Amino acid sequence: MNGAHALINTLVDEGVEVCFANPGTSEMHFVAALDGVPRMRAVLALFEGVATGAADGYARMTGGPAAVLLHLGPGLGNGLANLHNARRAHVPMVVIVGDHATYHKKYDAPLESDIDALAGSVSGWVHRASRTEDVAAYTTAAIAASRSGHISTLILPADVSWTEGVQADVPAMAVITPPTVTDEEMQLAANAFRSGEPTVLMIGGDATRGDGLAAAARIAAATGATLLCETFPTRLERGAGVPAVERLAYFAEAAQAQLAGARHLILVGAPSPVSFFAYPGKPSDLVPPGCAAQAVAGPFGATDALIALAEELAPGTGAPVASLSRPAIPNGPLTAFSAADVIGALLPENAIIVDEANTSGATLPAATAGAPAHDLLTLTGGAIGFGLPTAVGAAVAAPQRPVLCLQSDGSAMYTISALWTQARENLDITTVIYNNGAYDVLRIELQRVGAQSADAPGPKARDLLDLGRPAIDFSKIAEGMGVPARRVSTVEDFAAALTEAFAASGPHLIEAVIPSLLG
Amino acid sequence: MNGAHALINTLVDEGVEVCFANPGTSEMHFVAALDGVPRMRAVLALFEGVATGAADGYARMTGGPAAVLLHLGPGLGNGLANLHNARRAHVPMVVIVGDHATYHKKYDAPLESDIDALAGSVSGWVHRASRTEDVAAYTTAAIAASRSGHISTLILPADVSWTEGVQADVPAMAVITPPTVTDEEMQLAANAFRSGEPTVLMIGGDATRGDGLAAAARIAAATGATLLCETFPTRLERGAGVPAVERLAYFAEAAQAQLAGARHLILVGAPSPVSFFAYPGKPSDLVPPGCAAQAVAGPFGATDALIALAEELAPGTGAPVASLSRPAIPNGPLTAFSAADVIGALLPENAIIVDEANTSGATLPAATAGAPAHDLLTLTGGAIGFGLPTAVGAAVAAPQRPVLCLQSDGSAMYTISALWTQARENLDITTVIYNNGAYDVLRIELQRVGAQSADAPGPKARDLLDLGRPAIDFSKIAEGMGVPARRVSTVEDFAAALTEAFAASGPHLIEAVIPSLLG
Repeated sequence: MNGAHALINTLVDEGVEVCFANPGTSEMHFVAALDGVPRMRAVLALFEGVATGAADGYARMTGGPAAVLLHLGPGLGNGLANLHNARRAHVPMVVIVGDHATYHKKYDAPLESDIDALAGSVSGWVHRASRTEDVAAYTTAAIAASRSGHISTLILPADVSWTEGVQADVPAMAVITPPTVTDEEMQLAANAFRSGEPTVLMIGGDATRGDGLAAAARIAAATGATLLCETFPTRLERGAGVPAVERLAYFAEAAQAQLAGARHLILVGAPSPVSFFAYPGKPSDLVPPGCAAQAVAGPFGATDALIALAEELAPGTGAPVASLSRPAIPNGPLTAFSAADVIGALLPENAIIVDEANTSGATLPAATAGAPAHDLLTLTGGAIGFGLPTAVGAAVAAPQRPVLCLQSDGSAMYTISALWTQARENLDITTVIYNNGAYDVLRIELQRVGAQSADAPGPKARDLLDLGRPAIDFSKIAEGMGVPARRVSTVEDFAAALTEAFAASGPHLIEAVIPSLLG
Repeated sequence: MNGAHALINTLVDEGVEVCFANPGTSEMHFVAALDGVPRMRAVLALFEGVATGAADGYARMTGGPAAVLLHLGPGLGNGLANLHNARRAHVPMVVIVGDHATYHKKYDAPLESDIDALAGSVSGWVHRASRTEDVAAYTTAAIAASRSGHISTLILPADVSWTEGVQADVPAMAVITPPTVTDEEMQLAANAFRSGEPTVLMIGGDATRGDGLAAAARIAAATGATLLCETFPTRLERGAGVPAVERLAYFAEAAQAQLAGARHLILVGAPSPVSFFAYPGKPSDLVPPGCAAQAVAGPFGATDALIALAEELAPGTGAPVASLSRPAIPNGPLTAFSAADVIGALLPENAIIVDEANTSGATLPAATAGAPAHDLLTLTGGAIGFGLPTAVGAAVAAPQRPVLCLQSDGSAMYTISALWTQARENLDITTVIYNNGAYDVLRIELQRVGAQSADAPGPKARDLLDLGRPAIDFSKIAEGMGVPARRVSTVEDFAAALTEAFAASGPHLIEAVIPSLLG
């Protein structure tokens, strides 16, 4: 058995049966070995950022890792942005990066580069297999390490892949274990909730679903605490029948308003709130003055900690849940706001929403709060180009569920070839592109700069945030990659297109032409 | 003056007047400062790999650096593949990576990542400006370091950018100087040429243009040495009136045939020949047994070394040059080979060819050897997604020259949004997409694997190299980004489309539908 076979066999034996791949010559023995392992499904991406984003979406929906196959340092580089998001999402993932043969590296061939440095910047576990005999053991260790919410990167030299060898036993390797919650931490948190003082419970990590949400909602109802969720949850369950939780706002001013007056901030699975970016004269740390922040658990174990707290603080109570309440389909022009109402009105049962709508999604949480229960996947790391690829992975993971990908125009262009993989795999994804012809979030930021300094934004600055010269025709681009597309600019057409797309299987793209928020 | 103004003013004062940009919030003060410096031209890219590839093309044609503006670690990650190619091309480039404010980094906000590790993997010079007062000095140093053919990366925290400060004097900083050629090295090389034994002169670096080519051709003519050029020159001048040089082949077997029998290999500006990838049972080092390889100069100074050698070995001689000799437009079906002849027949005067045709370009060197003089830019680092962006930079650098971008289909999809920048800037670029519906180079590699091992490629393996399910319609994609496009599948239509595209200014795309080399 050569190294490639050992790798693929070990992956499927450990339950990793999907590989998102963009291979090259140094991975060709892996490719050649695929037919020998029927349980392994290989999904081709035309760009590495699509493969890594898809693996992120897959892991968010299954809880387990997918494998990703990348070609050398440049391939890993192309995949880094969505690996960054996956790292922030604390999802499991096994990244296999092919490298030159061990004996070839010293020649500094054109594609030689420092793979280890790149891998280290996003991975919780990095190893380089230098002998065929170790491949199975390293693969097992990589998978184990990933399961605690890390990216494991296994660098596989081509000769290790193609050489035959007997697999050695699995050596004991350090497993990354999440820190445990102490009794003292639990008691401090319970005391805060009982203090009678304004208290905010902010949840994140694994607590944004089912049992975690229920426990958090029970604590809030029983103690009067304000319940919030981290700004960018990995996977938030919400909608009718699910306990509702408001997310911390993206812009610091709005987040400060949500936290104002709190004396206690109990963090269960969520990091302490900080401004997404720094701004002149504004605080980075969003914990209000006079408020004591206390972390009870990290992203893993948050649900368990909340259940224990709920049993102590709200024994025997049930969790309040959102009721079914959809907005009406509005009249008037198609805007980001009216589009959100249309989505709230039409969202199918059991949907998965992948949200990279950015500014165009401002009212989406309210508009969909009473829609049928759904999962929401968000831009955990802020690296744009997340939506289209993550929708691929979510759809591969949950083929029976409709996926709705809400995608801003500027961000879509980073990983646009994900549409081709959607078509190739006939994935049930409805993509809405909000085409407002601008980097609207940066227009807002530029306005803020102008308000704070002598640099009144001039025509060159504004032009650099303008996507309208030339206007991008996403419908043509989608059709060019095999995804049926429709361009709409009225509420009626948007509603009709959405209804049709939800009714038909396979991928569909709706290009919603809307005005920029800034006119 | 704030840091952003100091940066931009220093760039233009030092002659860096183009910035390829994909900015984000942490770069908004840079954007706001642009209107105050009319001499700085900012060119927007929709993806960082387009910006870095464009800066590479710009530097290859001007010899001087462009600036590149990127957003944090994920933005740098997206730009790494084409930075890798630029590093291998030894071109100057100044990369500015915005970072979080200095005081904000400790909060580990969502976009926080290890920028320094990524920058270090491709840069010859990396500094982090931590005080506004140092920005001008660091910028000056970055530009100076880049001029010896390196990527200089300046990491600029947002608060350093927005804070006002008096600029300090420029401290003395180490400048990277290329090694000098010793008299002994020169004499050893001269002795080899005079030995009467089979000698190969392989050139690269700055010797693949004008004076370097002429000197190399004189040496070869006078001594009987075989003249070769490195496989992937940064910028090769060729065509009618230019001394001709054959490139070392990409596949190791073919390169070995070119070098067979040589007793001396004199490397002037070129690295010692190695196989692009390793293959089971085949050598990585392509220097034939019994051949002595001797490097005389690195990529800088190669021309000077050749001139000195020519004066010694071939005093008073002139260089033989290629004569004007175009192929006829062929009859028969449109293939990669007939397309090459059409290009040779129609190439306009003074063109710049950006070649990422990969397998589809196999006969292009022969077909264009007698075309009017032109520059050829090649895939120096092997990181695909190079062609479309590099054409952008070449066209910005040389607006009076027609640019012909020869682009394979698979590689095109990595940085396809470069077409939008081509349209936005109305660049005179004719792009030919060779649409053969496959990763053809990998099909060849997979065949080689199959011939060497028990892994006869099966349907899963072959499917992973197939781009035809669904077929990509590059014409629609191009039109979606504002580039007029035409799809052709006959020699006649290809010739007509090429003639039209060369005659009109602005960007045009021709999608040449051709069969896979493997049928």
